[in-house]
Amino acid sequence: MNYIVKGFDAGAVAAGIKKTGAPDLALVASRVPCRAAGVFTRNFFPAAPVIYDRQLLDFNPEAIYAVLVNAGCANACTGPEGEANARISAEQVALHLGAHEHSVFVMSTGVIGVQLPMEKVLAGVPKVVETLTPEGWPAAAAAIMTTDTRPKLATRQVALGDVTATITGIAKGAGMLHPNMATMLAVITTDAFVAQPLLQQALAAATEVSFNCISVDGDTSTNDTVILLANALADNEEIDAADSATFAAFSAALTDLCTELAQALVRDGEGVTRFVTVQVRGAASNAEAHQAANTIATSPLVKTAFFGGDANWGRILAAVGRAGIAVDPARCDLFIDGGADAATRLGELQLVAGGVPLPYSEAVATAIFAQPEIDVRVELGLSAGAATVWTSDLSYDYVRINGDYRT
Amino acid sequence: MNYIVKGFDAGAVAAGIKKTGAPDLALVASRVPCRAAGVFTRNFFPAAPVIYDRQLLDFNPEAIYAVLVNAGCANACTGPEGEANARISAEQVALHLGAHEHSVFVMSTGVIGVQLPMEKVLAGVPKVVETLTPEGWPAAAAAIMTTDTRPKLATRQVALGDVTATITGIAKGAGMLHPNMATMLAVITTDAFVAQPLLQQALAAATEVSFNCISVDGDTSTNDTVILLANALADNEEIDAADSATFAAFSAALTDLCTELAQALVRDGEGVTRFVTVQVRGAASNAEAHQAANTIATSPLVKTAFFGGDANWGRILAAVGRAGIAVDPARCDLFIDGGADAATRLGELQLVAGGVPLPYSEAVATAIFAQPEIDVRVELGLSAGAATVWTSDLSYDYVRINGDYRT
Repeated sequence: MNYIVKGFDAGAVAAGIKKTGAPDLALVASRVPCRAAGVFTRNFFPAAPVIYDRQLLDFNPEAIYAVLVNAGCANACTGPEGEANARISAEQVALHLGAHEHSVFVMSTGVIGVQLPMEKVLAGVPKVVETLTPEGWPAAAAAIMTTDTRPKLATRQVALGDVTATITGIAKGAGMLHPNMATMLAVITTDAFVAQPLLQQALAAATEVSFNCISVDGDTSTNDTVILLANALADNEEIDAADSATFAAFSAALTDLCTELAQALVRDGEGVTRFVTVQVRGAASNAEAHQAANTIATSPLVKTAFFGGDANWGRILAAVGRAGIAVDPARCDLFIDGGADAATRLGELQLVAGGVPLPYSEAVATAIFAQPEIDVRVELGLSAGAATVWTSDLSYDYVRINGDYRT
Repeated sequence: MNYIVKGFDAGAVAAGIKKTGAPDLALVASRVPCRAAGVFTRNFFPAAPVIYDRQLLDFNPEAIYAVLVNAGCANACTGPEGEANARISAEQVALHLGAHEHSVFVMSTGVIGVQLPMEKVLAGVPKVVETLTPEGWPAAAAAIMTTDTRPKLATRQVALGDVTATITGIAKGAGMLHPNMATMLAVITTDAFVAQPLLQQALAAATEVSFNCISVDGDTSTNDTVILLANALADNEEIDAADSATFAAFSAALTDLCTELAQALVRDGEGVTRFVTVQVRGAASNAEAHQAANTIATSPLVKTAFFGGDANWGRILAAVGRAGIAVDPARCDLFIDGGADAATRLGELQLVAGGVPLPYSEAVATAIFAQPEIDVRVELGLSAGAATVWTSDLSYDYVRINGDYRT
């Protein structure tokens, strides 16, 4: 995978923040200033780095140089001291990069309610700057992991007029330390030349159909952040019109990359044994379809049935029925399919027509629910609203990891 | 416990609906006509008995004789055939009681998407009528269980002017068969003489602060139903004014009884090892307080932390922060306490003040989280809105029971 993006470097070091001694401080930096876009958690308890990044994005969206990410401490629920620590970390990176002091984003994931170990962070900053190379992406992707078992790194090439631009991103998913919480972080970079408002528009749209369409446990972290940096070194003609073909191409590639990262987060979610695609169609609106799909995807009863490989479709309809959207049972159809790819798919099986179960083969249904990847499709028959959500099962290991169970 | 209510009988038989051969058909009947009130699931896929009972309550709220409850088959997602089966079951009970054909409610819990085995139900009806006695409540409470491990039966005496009335109720909680879903059912009877609109008002109000304040997994069943029958045999002066002292006394006793039953359902929830009381105070409104408390109570991260006995308070604040209500972190305080009763309580421990963690004793916090009963109190500091929700932890056994995991 050629993930190198012109003018961008990445690197990581072990700064001693993780108790394990594993790498825990990652840096992504551009050699020239970048336009930036960001999407942040909607949680009313935003972590200190989220507060800092929001202010920075408002203040300086046009000349950003880097993103510093630490794992092992979330810097959340840490009050004014935590906000000062986020700011000092960012300014120290800027200092060592020789950049303007207001030009570095920070992200944190790990223990909540504990202050950042600033002596370790400050000692780590010059070291991580030293590690920066164009090939440093895998090291950075690994350093931001917490309970993730695999690093997440994705890249796309996109033709913009005569030139080819690159988009490369890293992400981490549900991560746990003690005490702990799930956090989703992503840093995405591109050498494309894009007007800043369009960068934000493209990122918001891509996030809406990728990172906002996944759920492992329905819990929104205090730290969730997606940052996109664009340094314009691809030398494409500037993308400055929302109705242009190049903006469409850029947005499509960005959405595709975000979707790959988002799905990778679900596949590597805590205790996940099955990957489930939930489609709801025929809803009154896309928003109502999303609400129904999300209710299915977060139902403990549905998720434990997936874990058990149990063709327990009644729970799916029951979840739709409590989703808070208008439903006419007599118009509802339900379909399932299984298999990781086209070659191994079992073929769609209709379980319910008009709200009433069909006399389907229990053996076929059980075979589908035993697959590592399962598709569920609910047709509401009301209008054209549609949405897709990617989710997982709920397993013993999810409980073990999150219960910190001492055996 | 003297649970006998004047003029009411209860009984149960094994009709062969449960595969285990255990009693599965319960009947509660009055010798004189009753005024009735009912509260039903808001799920858009109501089961056939819910559809039937709603119609019956509209049609005849003043002269009801009985409630038939079967376990082992939910009669949900069963279309017109299911609705006919619910109606036929009700009419057969009326016939055998010698009552008007439109005077019997029906409730079902168990397998979804499967038709009621009508030959077994119809053979069981005359037999269960034969078992009716004033002392039949424990048998009826046991017959409606599915994965419940204990029957739930509660009673209250209430002074209404010169006479004492009785309120007795039975309930069942999260129940699983294969395939399966959670269902909450309750039948409550009283010999009090109450105007029907006030009966409905009292039941709706009591349900709002009892059954609607519990959550094991956040999934609303297609079958949830609470029915209240009042036969007026206590000979109290009719309660016909909402502002009367007797209505207040009746409502308080009813609410108390519903709360006992609701809490018993949580304590006996699937895989439950801890009983958690979540209080949110200082919210902008009672509704917002309830929303925040409910988000805490249904968060898988919070519930697995309770299971692990882990003082993971960051997850509680994170849940409040995503509850969709206005929150000012700088005004938030968080307290915990543990112990089953006043004698064994450990004393309240404040973990967070103004959104920032206090330097509390980790040993004390861990001792509290290790208790079988835990209280969590969040003070939002905004206004006077308050709510209490009772919930449980999320354990391996919840996953095992609902995953139907084959080892």
